[in-house]
Amino acid sequence: MAFRHKHILGIEQLSKEDIGFILDTADSFKEINTRDIKKVPTLRGKTIINLFFEASTRTRTSFEIAGKRLSADTINITASSSSVVKGETLEDTARNIEAMHPDIIVMRHSASGAPHYLADRLDCSIINAGDGAHEHPTQALLDMLTIRQHKGSLEGLKVAIIGDITHSRVARSDIYGLTRMGAEVRLAGPGTMIPPGIERLGAKVYADMREAIKGADVVMMLRIQLERQGKTLLPTLREYAKFYGLNPRNLTLAAPDALVMHPGPVNRGVELSSYVADGGQSVILDQVENGVAVRMAALYLVLGGEQGDNA
Amino acid sequence: MAFRHKHILGIEQLSKEDIGFILDTADSFKEINTRDIKKVPTLRGKTIINLFFEASTRTRTSFEIAGKRLSADTINITASSSSVVKGETLEDTARNIEAMHPDIIVMRHSASGAPHYLADRLDCSIINAGDGAHEHPTQALLDMLTIRQHKGSLEGLKVAIIGDITHSRVARSDIYGLTRMGAEVRLAGPGTMIPPGIERLGAKVYADMREAIKGADVVMMLRIQLERQGKTLLPTLREYAKFYGLNPRNLTLAAPDALVMHPGPVNRGVELSSYVADGGQSVILDQVENGVAVRMAALYLVLGGEQGDNA
Amino acid sequence: MAFRHKHILGIEQLSKEDIGFILDTADSFKEINTRDIKKVPTLRGKTIINLFFEASTRTRTSFEIAGKRLSADTINITASSSSVVKGETLEDTARNIEAMHPDIIVMRHSASGAPHYLADRLDCSIINAGDGAHEHPTQALLDMLTIRQHKGSLEGLKVAIIGDITHSRVARSDIYGLTRMGAEVRLAGPGTMIPPGIERLGAKVYADMREAIKGADVVMMLRIQLERQGKTLLPTLREYAKFYGLNPRNLTLAAPDALVMHPGPVNRGVELSSYVADGGQSVILDQVENGVAVRMAALYLVLGGEQGDNA
Repeated sequence: MAFRHKHILGIEQLSKEDIGFILDTADSFKEINTRDIKKVPTLRGKTIINLFFEASTRTRTSFEIAGKRLSADTINITASSSSVVKGETLEDTARNIEAMHPDIIVMRHSASGAPHYLADRLDCSIINAGDGAHEHPTQALLDMLTIRQHKGSLEGLKVAIIGDITHSRVARSDIYGLTRMGAEVRLAGPGTMIPPGIERLGAKVYADMREAIKGADVVMMLRIQLERQGKTLLPTLREYAKFYGLNPRNLTLAAPDALVMHPGPVNRGVELSSYVADGGQSVILDQVENGVAVRMAALYLVLGGEQGDNA
Repeated sequence: MAFRHKHILGIEQLSKEDIGFILDTADSFKEINTRDIKKVPTLRGKTIINLFFEASTRTRTSFEIAGKRLSADTINITASSSSVVKGETLEDTARNIEAMHPDIIVMRHSASGAPHYLADRLDCSIINAGDGAHEHPTQALLDMLTIRQHKGSLEGLKVAIIGDITHSRVARSDIYGLTRMGAEVRLAGPGTMIPPGIERLGAKVYADMREAIKGADVVMMLRIQLERQGKTLLPTLREYAKFYGLNPRNLTLAAPDALVMHPGPVNRGVELSSYVADGGQSVILDQVENGVAVRMAALYLVLGGEQGDNA
Repeated sequence: MAFRHKHILGIEQLSKEDIGFILDTADSFKEINTRDIKKVPTLRGKTIINLFFEASTRTRTSFEIAGKRLSADTINITASSSSVVKGETLEDTARNIEAMHPDIIVMRHSASGAPHYLADRLDCSIINAGDGAHEHPTQALLDMLTIRQHKGSLEGLKVAIIGDITHSRVARSDIYGLTRMGAEVRLAGPGTMIPPGIERLGAKVYADMREAIKGADVVMMLRIQLERQGKTLLPTLREYAKFYGLNPRNLTLAAPDALVMHPGPVNRGVELSSYVADGGQSVILDQVENGVAVRMAALYLVLGGEQGDNA
């Protein structure tokens, strides 16, 4: 089987088989990251541009390491230093970058749909590294890889996603992916943070967080992103932690071996108590680790890589 | 023939033969950029420092890609994070960088002559990536490469350069280069944007843009750089577009197969109408593409490369 | 002999043998920096993260060049773009970076002890690139390498360190290192800039700068760091230069072949007159040059490198 997508714009566009294929490829790349020589020549002579219109250390670093471990040349462009400030349109910026013959543009942008807009207009591959409150596909892929590694399969698992669903591109991508892989997705959060109609994506909404995590195999806590709240009425952080934070007490409602996940960076004492964040059920650092492997797979597959010759 | 310049500081210092040699070398490098493996070992083990005292995504990225495709190690230093803010002199900053044994410093600075000042004092090669309103030699080289690819030769061509000549290092470098290659250079722009005495460089000044582009083989539109205007009286953008913008109507005054060029980023609707910018005569993206090839040639040649062993 | 330290956190933790071993290794690496091909495959496939919570061009560039010349993959993370601004703790930031399997984190932080704190908690190697007013070990190592190259040995030399001892991590690391290597260290500076009890580190304090430099084999001038002065009463720069600046007149008090050193960037006319900075006794640029070699040695040795197979 070969991967038939030139871009990875969102999980919405990926089939169950696509996702499984990316996760299998990531599994085969993962081992490279713990070798003594963490480098394979797979993408030697390829140019990857990390085009970040929003600041991000974590995701940019993860993609940069993934590209370098595949021997690609990686170039970082951040909005603050870019021509964008000179009034150039997004399409002109991207076309100019494309004229330098990158193989892949990894792109983060505050506008939902920006990567899709460019994918329609450019010839090179585009990987969405987060577009507005829309999708963040490689985050969902690393989440699914982490769950699969711990649980063997995603099929039939109960996954509770708790927090600000409205502003979370992570939640949206995870809902698409987890439901497609046969998991049951449960959502809970303050009323203003649950977008009307989200059930249409196949998730169930719970008024009470405790109901959502009851018997769950995975509890995924979202980051409170003050910078994205806009005009939403925000409960105080203390109230938030009380009703929507995960702590050793409410975690007992979940399955005894439930995984605790968070896309980071964690606001300790808000979404998660430190006891839970650092506890035996937390797989938060596994998520980060898997991020590099998933991004290696994504970079490899959009360029047409085939399973078997990746090491 | 070998390239006899250790630095590329400006087009003013280059002979017709030098320019032709750089363009020929760029032509031979260009093909690498569209290969499956976009990399040659030519500059392996060389250290290139991109020392940018003024922000620039486009030029820095182009040089960085050029360096990486030649297998050099590239290091970016930008003014905002540099010791310059700590009150160090330019010469001390540069001498300190030189003590780390770079092979080439690619340098952008707001002061005209800054690269020449350093070239007199340092041992490594220096490539000027733009000094104040003085020169931007690799831009002129990529412009000439683009024209030559489309027209076969520069000899005898009529090239109109329209806009803010006074503040444009691009215009200055292009005037030097084009006249040296045997082209006729015509200038037009608002009175405050035509520097007195510019005719001494061999260009003709026209009061009316329409006269300048009449029968032209190339129409090169300059960017309105508000950030460089200083105390110049600036017409409104609307007036500017009316009298000095290129649109489908006045473009018909030029030769039927005239090339439309712009150094970017384009202010759509000001210097160029979108119809013209995206039209069949526009070679703006060819310019960007050729930028990488020209910079590969520049990096290669200042280190003494000889034609023939560059791939 | 093998280097037995996994981290380089400070000179305080290094024995005379450790220091000698690092300097010997740096000597053997130094030659690579002047080769035609400045690159050895020693650290191919290793990932080095430069994690700078404080801006630094010079040290970051020096480490980046050192890593690249050893063929390591280097990734830069600066605080301004990092998750730190999102309220993440230092430990969480570092653990997240570690989950991506870097081999070495090179770290600068404004808090004294930050690298030690992380070294206790992370698995990868950590090199301190400056922590608050505490230590800057690679700077002291490059200082010692420079002195050793000029004087043959550090044993028995008289080294005067002049300026703001209180706020200088360079001074602290140099005092540890020089005394351990058998040099006599003399300190002088304005009263507010001499920390009480500094004599316990084995240095002698002089009230008068002229006494300190009398007969000295090395005069090391510290940078006046206005950004670190805090609430200290600062003499005017003019007064400072008069009483604590090095000039051709007071330099004659030192040994005739005394070396003049400065960690840079120099405030010309304050710590040093230009005549002295550019004079025949100045080894300031040797320090910068040796910085790359010392950092190559540090990166190599913390990963367990053994003398003999480093080229």
